[in-house]
Amino acid sequence: MNANLNDYIERYKGIIHQELTYRLKQMDIPENLKESMLYSVEASGKRLRPILLIASYEHYGNDIKKVMNAAIAIELIHTYSLIHDDLPAMDNDDFRRGKPTNHKIFNEATAILAGDALLTCSFQLIAEDNNLQDFEKVELIKNLSKAAGPSGMVAGQIMDMEAENQPINLQQLETIHELKTGELLTFSVYAGAFIGQATEEELIHLKEFAYYLGLIFQVQDDILDVTGDPEKLGKPTGSDEDNKKSTYPNLLGLNGAINHKEMYVQKAIEALKKANAENSYLMELIHHFSQRDH
Amino acid sequence: MNANLNDYIERYKGIIHQELTYRLKQMDIPENLKESMLYSVEASGKRLRPILLIASYEHYGNDIKKVMNAAIAIELIHTYSLIHDDLPAMDNDDFRRGKPTNHKIFNEATAILAGDALLTCSFQLIAEDNNLQDFEKVELIKNLSKAAGPSGMVAGQIMDMEAENQPINLQQLETIHELKTGELLTFSVYAGAFIGQATEEELIHLKEFAYYLGLIFQVQDDILDVTGDPEKLGKPTGSDEDNKKSTYPNLLGLNGAINHKEMYVQKAIEALKKANAENSYLMELIHHFSQRDH
Repeated sequence: MNANLNDYIERYKGIIHQELTYRLKQMDIPENLKESMLYSVEASGKRLRPILLIASYEHYGNDIKKVMNAAIAIELIHTYSLIHDDLPAMDNDDFRRGKPTNHKIFNEATAILAGDALLTCSFQLIAEDNNLQDFEKVELIKNLSKAAGPSGMVAGQIMDMEAENQPINLQQLETIHELKTGELLTFSVYAGAFIGQATEEELIHLKEFAYYLGLIFQVQDDILDVTGDPEKLGKPTGSDEDNKKSTYPNLLGLNGAINHKEMYVQKAIEALKKANAENSYLMELIHHFSQRDH
Repeated sequence: MNANLNDYIERYKGIIHQELTYRLKQMDIPENLKESMLYSVEASGKRLRPILLIASYEHYGNDIKKVMNAAIAIELIHTYSLIHDDLPAMDNDDFRRGKPTNHKIFNEATAILAGDALLTCSFQLIAEDNNLQDFEKVELIKNLSKAAGPSGMVAGQIMDMEAENQPINLQQLETIHELKTGELLTFSVYAGAFIGQATEEELIHLKEFAYYLGLIFQVQDDILDVTGDPEKLGKPTGSDEDNKKSTYPNLLGLNGAINHKEMYVQKAIEALKKANAENSYLMELIHHFSQRDH
């Protein structure tokens, strides 16, 4: 990985972690519920969504505190979706990132409520943000609720469940990925650039960039499940094959999947150039997403 | 019940029902998820929260379309909380209002996601409302997220769970009720009056009114579990006693509970007078809440 980008990511991972825990600890929440929320929020993930939001903002603006609440909000939504996804009634996962899932440490009821609470807090954080104007808050909440709700992420989760154990084609696979993970990634890129006052046209191209970035993330996920190192990934490989999940390698073969990823990379670069953002960390993040080994 | 109030409630119940289903049907949502959301939203409840919001607004303002999205949003939040509350990991209820609960008709995963979707949509509805100005939307979302989140309704749910099978005192009981149901009722009254441009002082007294109204609702709930008609209630009575739940009649005796309710009624009336709203439907709603038999 590019040393600069590496520094950039590590620096903001630290800041985001601090801001996340600071904000939650400050809130007047029953102890057990707060612990449950903090447990999943602190389970140090890649923080891709807030970093994308910040990188997108910093290409256009230079007052980082204007985006901090929005960056935290998107990570809260991501965390809520993982807690609910892991529940016995959903994916029934006992471990995430090598640690027991929320409902294994607390209990199912608390995990459900912790997820509900994180989702609700994310909108509160934006609405209470003293660094944004009202029209900015409304635009963010409009887009975030749409991206996270039943025509966005939740739609993707339902469709993903319905697609289990039945063959789907490449187009259906892309639709599921776009909804389940793409919409929140797109929101991140859009929100940062919007607050940074990118032009209407730049915003359109950035959304296109984010669309391909989401697909790059997902095809690499599928590729890693075939070729990855279980130690680096923190989870066993080959699970997609075992679960008969539709993936890029299953549909296109491993080489086909790698070529397909390259095609997405080219499209993401083109869109970023049109957004006048080829000299931003977003460009380096394309390669980071494409070549990650965990 | 007062004939006028009865007409008022029935008229708005019809309108709210129409608006709720219209808005959900319009949205681009996967079929199964939409059916699950509609199932619980249509399971015709009392619509108390939207009616409170509208009655509060109509005392101060006269452009009903300004509050319709907010009224729908509060009912969506209420519905989400019921779906999640009924889940096997939570209250494990098979029936609500005489009909099978959401997860019994669909499945647990779909019920969890339908709840998540309704919660998310409620913020979207307010953010996308063309009849409100940005500062109004921000104020509503700020208050709604706080009332519904981990220092409001979700806190009440956690504390209610933790209080099961252990004795609590009257003060703890009131705190749980205030958080679990009171905060959303208070939001309803506040939101309507805020959009209707009530004064700062009126808003303060209306919040006080709503606080007591919530407690009236709850003590009557407890009283009905002892004295109510199971047919009218649509659920068996005596369940609090069987579940060893802390209730007003358990803590104060039946007569003590009834006297306590009267004290709340007087306080609610006083607060409403201070808000210059004694000639509104809110006044009649106090007696409606206090004397309801289902």
